[in-house]
Amino acid sequence: MKLKQGLTLWLTGLSGTGKSTISEALRDKLIKNNPDFPIEILDGDAVREHLCADLSFSKKDRFTNIERIAFLAGKISKHDVLVLVPVIAPYQEARKMARSLSAQFVEVYIKTSIEEVIKRDVKGLYKKAIAGEIKEFTGISDPYEEPENPEILIETEKQSVEESVDKIIDYLITGNYLQSEEHQNKYRAIKT
Amino acid sequence: MKLKQGLTLWLTGLSGTGKSTISEALRDKLIKNNPDFPIEILDGDAVREHLCADLSFSKKDRFTNIERIAFLAGKISKHDVLVLVPVIAPYQEARKMARSLSAQFVEVYIKTSIEEVIKRDVKGLYKKAIAGEIKEFTGISDPYEEPENPEILIETEKQSVEESVDKIIDYLITGNYLQSEEHQNKYRAIKT
Repeated sequence: MKLKQGLTLWLTGLSGTGKSTISEALRDKLIKNNPDFPIEILDGDAVREHLCADLSFSKKDRFTNIERIAFLAGKISKHDVLVLVPVIAPYQEARKMARSLSAQFVEVYIKTSIEEVIKRDVKGLYKKAIAGEIKEFTGISDPYEEPENPEILIETEKQSVEESVDKIIDYLITGNYLQSEEHQNKYRAIKT
Repeated sequence: MKLKQGLTLWLTGLSGTGKSTISEALRDKLIKNNPDFPIEILDGDAVREHLCADLSFSKKDRFTNIERIAFLAGKISKHDVLVLVPVIAPYQEARKMARSLSAQFVEVYIKTSIEEVIKRDVKGLYKKAIAGEIKEFTGISDPYEEPENPEILIETEKQSVEESVDKIIDYLITGNYLQSEEHQNKYRAIKT
């Protein structure tokens, strides 16, 4: 599989929906197929130390956090790289701003009901948020504004990680971001 | 000319030595030779709005400014891009930190005497700094710690912009970062 044009693929959704898991599975599938595939995952951890150490969880600081990650994603994806950003980005306005900082931008909404993420609670964060031990927690004590028109909708209660990855890859092929081997082989067949 | 491996090329030096001029001349020469040459210039202006809007000129904030630019440079150069950073970076310690954030890093010291930059004073900043209208101005009211072992030394009172660009290109070819056409042609000749 070959990347035809760089883009930022932003995976938005509540904490615990599987944004990072899907990003990593997507990266692993692309790299397995093509070890030189140009890809970068930018999550909160990747930027915390050097780019966002000064930021809190206030609305203003969350916006700044998204702005810095989005700026970085735009600068990298411009150089023919697929940049995956599994970051909650709960506000519509901040996602709109993020989109404006990449020449090519695709929004993926990783949708899971709040009941389901509370039930899963992999990191035990929802329990703490409900108990009031974590303030300003998205979905509990802070809003999550659902994307109105995401390019890709993944419903994790209906789709497996593998199906989600395939749905994203199909979108990228259709959108002319990715070239699949079948196309490559066809092209080669025509040429020879 | 072809880039063989991505790197961050940091051009340090006093304000007004010609860091940006040399960076742009280098970029123009590489792009003229190869329109697809992967290159990015990251100067203070490029990062101010989205990455560094919150920073002052205090020593702490200057360090953070360098850290964010260096982190960005490292993330971009990793994807086979030549990233030019024409940024003063007056402190040895901050430059050392910047180096640690790129897998490949080359320091270029653009050296001009303080007398000469005061004489040139292209932007009128030295006049203001000497009059005390600008505080914490590098070389006047704030220190510039000279690089002890820069990979490349450019002395702008002895070398023209064109000579400076050629010196940098020669270094990059010798260091196996760049492949010149002569080498490419030689390789092609051996292959056929």
